[in-house]
Amino acid sequence: MQSTGKHFRSGVRRGGNPRLRRKIGVASAGLVGSMLAECRPGWSLPREFYSDEPIYRADIEHLWRSGWLFAGHSCEIPKPGDYFTLELDGDSLLVIRGNDGAIRGLHNVCRHRGSLICTAPAGHATRLVCPYHQWTYGCDGKLLACRGMQEDLDKSQFGLRPIHTREVEGLIYLSLADKPPTFDAAQQLLSSLARPQGFARAKIAKTVDYLVKANWKLVWENNRECFHCNFGHPQYIKANFDHYNSDDTTAGIKKKIAAAVARSEQKWADAGLTATHKQTGMTVFPDAEKNIWFSANRTALVDGYVSETMDGKQIAPLMGDYRDADVGTLRMRSLPNFWNHSSCDHAVSTRLLPIGPQQTAIRVYWLVDAAAVEGRDYQLEKMMPFWQLTSEQDWEICERQQHGVNSRAYTPGPYSTYKEYNVDGFVRWYLKMLARKVS
Amino acid sequence: MQSTGKHFRSGVRRGGNPRLRRKIGVASAGLVGSMLAECRPGWSLPREFYSDEPIYRADIEHLWRSGWLFAGHSCEIPKPGDYFTLELDGDSLLVIRGNDGAIRGLHNVCRHRGSLICTAPAGHATRLVCPYHQWTYGCDGKLLACRGMQEDLDKSQFGLRPIHTREVEGLIYLSLADKPPTFDAAQQLLSSLARPQGFARAKIAKTVDYLVKANWKLVWENNRECFHCNFGHPQYIKANFDHYNSDDTTAGIKKKIAAAVARSEQKWADAGLTATHKQTGMTVFPDAEKNIWFSANRTALVDGYVSETMDGKQIAPLMGDYRDADVGTLRMRSLPNFWNHSSCDHAVSTRLLPIGPQQTAIRVYWLVDAAAVEGRDYQLEKMMPFWQLTSEQDWEICERQQHGVNSRAYTPGPYSTYKEYNVDGFVRWYLKMLARKVS
Amino acid sequence: MQSTGKHFRSGVRRGGNPRLRRKIGVASAGLVGSMLAECRPGWSLPREFYSDEPIYRADIEHLWRSGWLFAGHSCEIPKPGDYFTLELDGDSLLVIRGNDGAIRGLHNVCRHRGSLICTAPAGHATRLVCPYHQWTYGCDGKLLACRGMQEDLDKSQFGLRPIHTREVEGLIYLSLADKPPTFDAAQQLLSSLARPQGFARAKIAKTVDYLVKANWKLVWENNRECFHCNFGHPQYIKANFDHYNSDDTTAGIKKKIAAAVARSEQKWADAGLTATHKQTGMTVFPDAEKNIWFSANRTALVDGYVSETMDGKQIAPLMGDYRDADVGTLRMRSLPNFWNHSSCDHAVSTRLLPIGPQQTAIRVYWLVDAAAVEGRDYQLEKMMPFWQLTSEQDWEICERQQHGVNSRAYTPGPYSTYKEYNVDGFVRWYLKMLARKVS
Repeated sequence: MQSTGKHFRSGVRRGGNPRLRRKIGVASAGLVGSMLAECRPGWSLPREFYSDEPIYRADIEHLWRSGWLFAGHSCEIPKPGDYFTLELDGDSLLVIRGNDGAIRGLHNVCRHRGSLICTAPAGHATRLVCPYHQWTYGCDGKLLACRGMQEDLDKSQFGLRPIHTREVEGLIYLSLADKPPTFDAAQQLLSSLARPQGFARAKIAKTVDYLVKANWKLVWENNRECFHCNFGHPQYIKANFDHYNSDDTTAGIKKKIAAAVARSEQKWADAGLTATHKQTGMTVFPDAEKNIWFSANRTALVDGYVSETMDGKQIAPLMGDYRDADVGTLRMRSLPNFWNHSSCDHAVSTRLLPIGPQQTAIRVYWLVDAAAVEGRDYQLEKMMPFWQLTSEQDWEICERQQHGVNSRAYTPGPYSTYKEYNVDGFVRWYLKMLARKVS
Repeated sequence: MQSTGKHFRSGVRRGGNPRLRRKIGVASAGLVGSMLAECRPGWSLPREFYSDEPIYRADIEHLWRSGWLFAGHSCEIPKPGDYFTLELDGDSLLVIRGNDGAIRGLHNVCRHRGSLICTAPAGHATRLVCPYHQWTYGCDGKLLACRGMQEDLDKSQFGLRPIHTREVEGLIYLSLADKPPTFDAAQQLLSSLARPQGFARAKIAKTVDYLVKANWKLVWENNRECFHCNFGHPQYIKANFDHYNSDDTTAGIKKKIAAAVARSEQKWADAGLTATHKQTGMTVFPDAEKNIWFSANRTALVDGYVSETMDGKQIAPLMGDYRDADVGTLRMRSLPNFWNHSSCDHAVSTRLLPIGPQQTAIRVYWLVDAAAVEGRDYQLEKMMPFWQLTSEQDWEICERQQHGVNSRAYTPGPYSTYKEYNVDGFVRWYLKMLARKVS
Repeated sequence: MQSTGKHFRSGVRRGGNPRLRRKIGVASAGLVGSMLAECRPGWSLPREFYSDEPIYRADIEHLWRSGWLFAGHSCEIPKPGDYFTLELDGDSLLVIRGNDGAIRGLHNVCRHRGSLICTAPAGHATRLVCPYHQWTYGCDGKLLACRGMQEDLDKSQFGLRPIHTREVEGLIYLSLADKPPTFDAAQQLLSSLARPQGFARAKIAKTVDYLVKANWKLVWENNRECFHCNFGHPQYIKANFDHYNSDDTTAGIKKKIAAAVARSEQKWADAGLTATHKQTGMTVFPDAEKNIWFSANRTALVDGYVSETMDGKQIAPLMGDYRDADVGTLRMRSLPNFWNHSSCDHAVSTRLLPIGPQQTAIRVYWLVDAAAVEGRDYQLEKMMPFWQLTSEQDWEICERQQHGVNSRAYTPGPYSTYKEYNVDGFVRWYLKMLARKVS
């Protein structure tokens, strides 16, 4: 299910003054080049990477406008005409389900004089009518009518600009790149691992929006290690094994996770599920060398936990294909802006959108089976605290780090080889993305 | 009535570091030059013109600091010593009526150490005393006393810096240019058309201030077409003929406006008034080729409307020279910051002041005859809705457009030759102003 | 009492990209050079010095990061482990008393991944534990523990970065310079003049924080003259002689101050105190030629005033070594950020910290003897008004001046040779600092 960028390059040239862009590009390239030379393998990045506008601009061009962005869940827009909007770097993006059932990303900008078309964060429309002069587009972006314009205007040249779109098992991805990187491997992995969770048959139980005063990379670096979990996340460590690492996984802990994996695997085998991460510590991600920007794995929860809730108990009907609560936890992530932790009965997605060198808009979504009824089948106050607390603990950590990193006295520090291998991996992946030429 | 810039260039050289200004000028000129080359005749402007700081700076220098700005109404400061202040691009401007009755614009900045002198938005003063060290100026700006300074200080060199000022039929204009463009033609037209309205014998019934998140040019482009009126302004189109254009003025409509003009003209002839716009559609303005930045015309209202009110009825005593309510509507406008819609019984002025690339401060004034008493002769709740609703509808349209135009996916779109000829005219006038050398 | 910068340059090179800093330095140097040429002796500075970012950056580098900054009072942190934090130009600075009793300035930034360590404005700690991954430092900044890191990490290379610190008679000074200027002369003068006031044996009765919308130099220029006192400070002039100057000190006034000095000197001699300023007008400070950035003097109060309170009466127990209330007033100041006015019974300190070209954070401290008990020995409502009113009057003056100075119509004006000699001296000192090479 995808919309091609076919009539994307038709009509008027887009993107403003190319001479201007070129100049900015050159200045930025020079700066980025000299900054890249300052980075030390295995150490955190220099201050400018977390704080300053020029690197932020480079991040936007080389990563955010070049890769695949998680936009939302297909279950947010179940019916033709349902839509939601999101904002990246000043661009208003519209995600809408067409009459053909396909989900398309469209630039939410009228081709006449540039007015926003949909002004609500989400809604339903049979046609997309610009509120300024009523240029009228189909849900596929085609210009259908423009009353009052000259007769010789070629409507085929003025459709809403399309955005490359992919849907995989209920997860919607967009790319603003002219030529996006391949999505095939991500599609294959995510569809296989995510299928049993039934995201396309889910519903959004709740979303919470945060404005976190931290560079988006600090948010990811925080996400890529559980070194901080013992002190930072008292709830999380009760349910999970990944705060243990090669330096502190004792024989007793090894036995416990082996038992949990064995017990679960037996049930999962019956259900056609596969255990993919069977050790303590976090699965290795991302992989800068193989350019792996997405991953998914299933792993065991601690004995007594069948759901990532405060007491480990199931608090909503089973989702998707699950027939038993003991399915461990499914985890997915894709750079630069998505991760998900799913239990048997609910799933929690996190979406990042940068809004400046030191600010990131974060939305956390809680999903349950589409048929579940709030109050009867689940209570938000039982479902939300585990991930709401854990998330907010992390945002506070990130803001404290941003504050310190802004100091001229900050200099890069060394990563723990035991516990921060994934932070180092993230930094290596990031620097590789930054250094390559933008398509 | 005007204050010359005589002692303007006396004393210390003004305006900061000329080397610095030259540099900024050159950089800006290069950018503006390359941007001008991107513009396509008959299409809206590239994004940078509406969104970015460099073009905004060029707008300030080439238009706002070079042309004539509407500052306010002379009836706001009826007595000697009455004053009001306004702000443009960091400059605090004082408009004060002197003991000789003349209105003068003065920079509201003490010549000693630069303190603001008048801190209230409006008031009355017999002398202008700096609140810091009591340097004391006359209402004409002359330095009268500066206790504590050395005896040889030549007070004649330290008057408040004057601003070129013109008053025409109760409308006050300022120019910050060293050598302002001629005001003569504007003076002649406005005095002839505005005289019967009696602005100098009016009073301000109400002002409402808005901070609109849109570039000042988007506000003008909105003002220069009634293409959006059918959907955007349900009140306005009931009273007026200008939302009809060559593509949709039917024989019936033509007959109606002709009848309204004929009926009105008969009365206006008796009253010495002249009908100047007798067709549907908006009068052509501005005229880039002839460099016409001001205009005024009188046109008919729809049958049943003698005032731009919700029900078309007169809601205040007749203004100025009017002896009959059926005078149609007087409309005036001057670039870059003023328009006015006047009915027989009240007048509505709009003043724009830019405060950034994406923000415009807008004041809307309602005026009535000076002798009218609120509550007895008029009610604000009957007078205000027509233009308050219409104005606020437009501000919302402009903010939606700014939001969309900020997107990198925005590209210029084509103007309707039927309905947006004045938007195109405005853009041509603007680009001409931007391209010329600043005096 | 001082902490050397010994292990400061050890470990990883600090301060980010040197190539980048060099570029900024060169651009800034060119601008500052051309701006310096615009300054006219005896006149106020051009607008750019008060309003613009490039000069502000130069101020930060050439003055704020190069000189000695007043940080606070040692009585704020009486016990080992007591600390407070302050912020300069994005740097979070920690001032903490060690187990050895010594006060040290430390950068409040973890050497691991840069998190802020102490997040409270003030508190007590036995060890400094980073809230992110629990790297643990001693109160002297030494890294004691970093659980989870590789075994070969050399902890001696990862102490908290120290800041040059001096304490003189209870006043704490920091310098962010690599090689700070000498503190010896300041130490000698301040210790001699400040000793009788007993700051180290005082306590903070109250602090009030202000965010003043004015460049820090405008705040100093206001502080460096009493030309504005007659109108600006009705309370202050009742107690003091320094608003009189050579142009308005009459024979009667001369007699009064001579009598006050004579009467006080007799008592001060008994108490081992010395009168150092015996005339009307302000003592000369700073001295650009001799590079004097600090000063202190004792002078007489007006007859009937033994304390800078609303009615001149003593309102708290005598401080320090004083045995009699009639000790005149002790005044101290050090550039770029401190002044103090002390009476027999209380002392008032003012600390400036710039937070942008047009904003200054100001803290005013009221101090009394450590043994004094609020409510019993003193009332805040009797102690605070004199300096709270005077301070707030000045902040309002400064904000009005900033507003006016922002205007392009502002040009430098002449200083009064009678009354603004110290403003001129401040400007000369400032320009000298700005012109020199940064260490």
